[in-house]
Amino acid sequence: MSERPHLRRGPALAAARPHAEFLATSSWSRRTGDRVCDFVFGDPQESPPDGFVEAIQRAGAARDPSWFAYKGSTPVARETVSESLRRRLGVPFEPADVFMTRGASSALAIALAALVEPGDEVIFLMPPWFFYESMIAYARAVPVPVGVDMRTFDPDIEALEAAITSRTRAVIVNTPHNPTGRIYSDCVLTDLAGILSSASAAHGSPIYLFSDEAYSRIVFDGRRFTSPVAHYPYSLLFYSYGKTLLTPGQRMGYLALAPTMPARAELREAIALAQFGGGALGVPDALMQHALPDLEPLSVDVRRLERRRDLLAGALQEHGYEAHRPEGTFYMLVKSPAADEAPFVDLLAAHNVYVLPGRIVGLPGYFRISLTATDDMAERSIVGFSEAMREHANGRRSVRRP
Amino acid sequence: MSERPHLRRGPALAAARPHAEFLATSSWSRRTGDRVCDFVFGDPQESPPDGFVEAIQRAGAARDPSWFAYKGSTPVARETVSESLRRRLGVPFEPADVFMTRGASSALAIALAALVEPGDEVIFLMPPWFFYESMIAYARAVPVPVGVDMRTFDPDIEALEAAITSRTRAVIVNTPHNPTGRIYSDCVLTDLAGILSSASAAHGSPIYLFSDEAYSRIVFDGRRFTSPVAHYPYSLLFYSYGKTLLTPGQRMGYLALAPTMPARAELREAIALAQFGGGALGVPDALMQHALPDLEPLSVDVRRLERRRDLLAGALQEHGYEAHRPEGTFYMLVKSPAADEAPFVDLLAAHNVYVLPGRIVGLPGYFRISLTATDDMAERSIVGFSEAMREHANGRRSVRRP
Repeated sequence: MSERPHLRRGPALAAARPHAEFLATSSWSRRTGDRVCDFVFGDPQESPPDGFVEAIQRAGAARDPSWFAYKGSTPVARETVSESLRRRLGVPFEPADVFMTRGASSALAIALAALVEPGDEVIFLMPPWFFYESMIAYARAVPVPVGVDMRTFDPDIEALEAAITSRTRAVIVNTPHNPTGRIYSDCVLTDLAGILSSASAAHGSPIYLFSDEAYSRIVFDGRRFTSPVAHYPYSLLFYSYGKTLLTPGQRMGYLALAPTMPARAELREAIALAQFGGGALGVPDALMQHALPDLEPLSVDVRRLERRRDLLAGALQEHGYEAHRPEGTFYMLVKSPAADEAPFVDLLAAHNVYVLPGRIVGLPGYFRISLTATDDMAERSIVGFSEAMREHANGRRSVRRP
Repeated sequence: MSERPHLRRGPALAAARPHAEFLATSSWSRRTGDRVCDFVFGDPQESPPDGFVEAIQRAGAARDPSWFAYKGSTPVARETVSESLRRRLGVPFEPADVFMTRGASSALAIALAALVEPGDEVIFLMPPWFFYESMIAYARAVPVPVGVDMRTFDPDIEALEAAITSRTRAVIVNTPHNPTGRIYSDCVLTDLAGILSSASAAHGSPIYLFSDEAYSRIVFDGRRFTSPVAHYPYSLLFYSYGKTLLTPGQRMGYLALAPTMPARAELREAIALAQFGGGALGVPDALMQHALPDLEPLSVDVRRLERRRDLLAGALQEHGYEAHRPEGTFYMLVKSPAADEAPFVDLLAAHNVYVLPGRIVGLPGYFRISLTATDDMAERSIVGFSEAMREHANGRRSVRRP
């Protein structure tokens, strides 16, 4: 029996594998040392925001025997979240519609378990967050990619409408959008809501909008973020504190049902059962829920991210790159000077500048820079970006020579 | 559209609902106050073990910028676990075969995602842990219950063999067993391994043994715990620190592949992809992994649980109950004096003694006592158990009278 393979088939495996292979590439895991400029992931490279460690340590002291007992969404956490959502979005969320999760990805997993059956189709936008496709596939549903308009980075509404079938159960949108940095306007969201409402009516059953708002508080230039949830009743809002606090290994977020959602009692039950009946996977640790009232007002310094964006965008443009200035998120998208970005990304790495190749997020020909690098890395990287561009240009010239 | 139901069908929903309804029953959620004796769940009613809060708070202080960054299974955590498993079980687990999870239920969810396809059958033993059936159903697989021998509480090996079909993908066992307190002997495990090996060979593909060992360190009377993983190569071990530390709201555990498992490289990849591609749901918080080397040697006072078991078992037998003395776990199973235990459980509650009705865990006619209650509750409860028995007997007499 020892020669027999473990796995019979695996669309989910196939969807997750490219990311795993990228992560396992040794040159990426070796990106350490004083000279490295690490722009690969939205990961912290400096201390957490002031007050974070104190809040965690305070919440670590048991104040009663049930402090570390089994926890669902605690009443204090639900109240804190609904108050924050009302204040920030102007939408009257109810505490009973808030389900504490381990971030936005965990909220998506719970929504998929509660609402999506095998064979259902779930639409997501390309370029996507790393694991939308594989998460849909692990839920045994069918991932349906739809492109964005590459001039505006807005959803291609016509392509989206054309992709809807009688099996479409949900559409995932993400605003502010990783990796393009686009914030969807009220106008775009109204169009989106319009086609989802029409298609739902034609279907005879609702198409859900899964709204991934992990970056809703990382917004630049004094822009205003509008939640898609304000535009469409069959909406589920997903949020993560891991971005706002820049502590993604300490997982907490939530799923919130739109207050305009019809028949919410039934849906609340379905969400609660999926969360517990699925193994209580999606509930944050007791400590994180205890710390939430202290953590809710904390944030990374968004103005500093904005200044880093401006420094890098200016320098890259000066050295001949097409760099896209994001409206929000941690990320800046840059067009690779070579059509295939992979060798160019390796060339940057040879200059100690590590970026994310676009193909990993469905955008071949681009690379992604995370603004969570330090100011020092941002400044030091400019020489590397400049030299890589020069070598690339020389390489092209030398190739052209007979 | 507002009248349209959200849900189309739901075997998973149906499997999870009875537990949710029980949890929502107001008399259970009202079990507070000085006079209450709460034996319902394996939840803490006293302070965590000495050293727990200190370990958590120490791990809460960021020692480097990546302290709270995205985390997979950290090398230190994997090393700590494999060393503990080697020492406690005498089985040479490799660090690379250890995957940190959010407890045993989270390990089960990952194993289901990695190895089980829709339509596959997964066998579990009745009486089961609360959510085996619903977790299998949420994985879109088919839950197949098989009874235990009610005299010994060992698996009914013949019934298990008869339940295996060509669609059987895995069998879940739990030793020490919640709620019977049974520890499976080497002899039972050898028989189990024998039928699984034969059936796998007949199938042409392995049937996996999912071994839930959440209570492996809560063992009484100097008994020895043997892991099923030592008996059968296609075994995945699930563990939770939430029982040993009695802090189930602060979730950490692991999934470990048997070192005798053939073709482990392929399976390691499948587990890692399910864990990340499924949304990184199953990875414990950074803080818990940092704290693990300090937490690993800590434990609830098992001798004290044993004394509480003896006090309660003796008193219950004295007052006419059939109480089963567990070999391990937090739980003691008691036969209800009435064939339908539900009204008797309500009668106990009227005397401020709260226990878990057996029907919730597939054992109608029984109730379950959690030994995690305080010594004071255990002592105070004896009057309530005694009076409920007396009233039940009087009630029966009065019913018999014309």
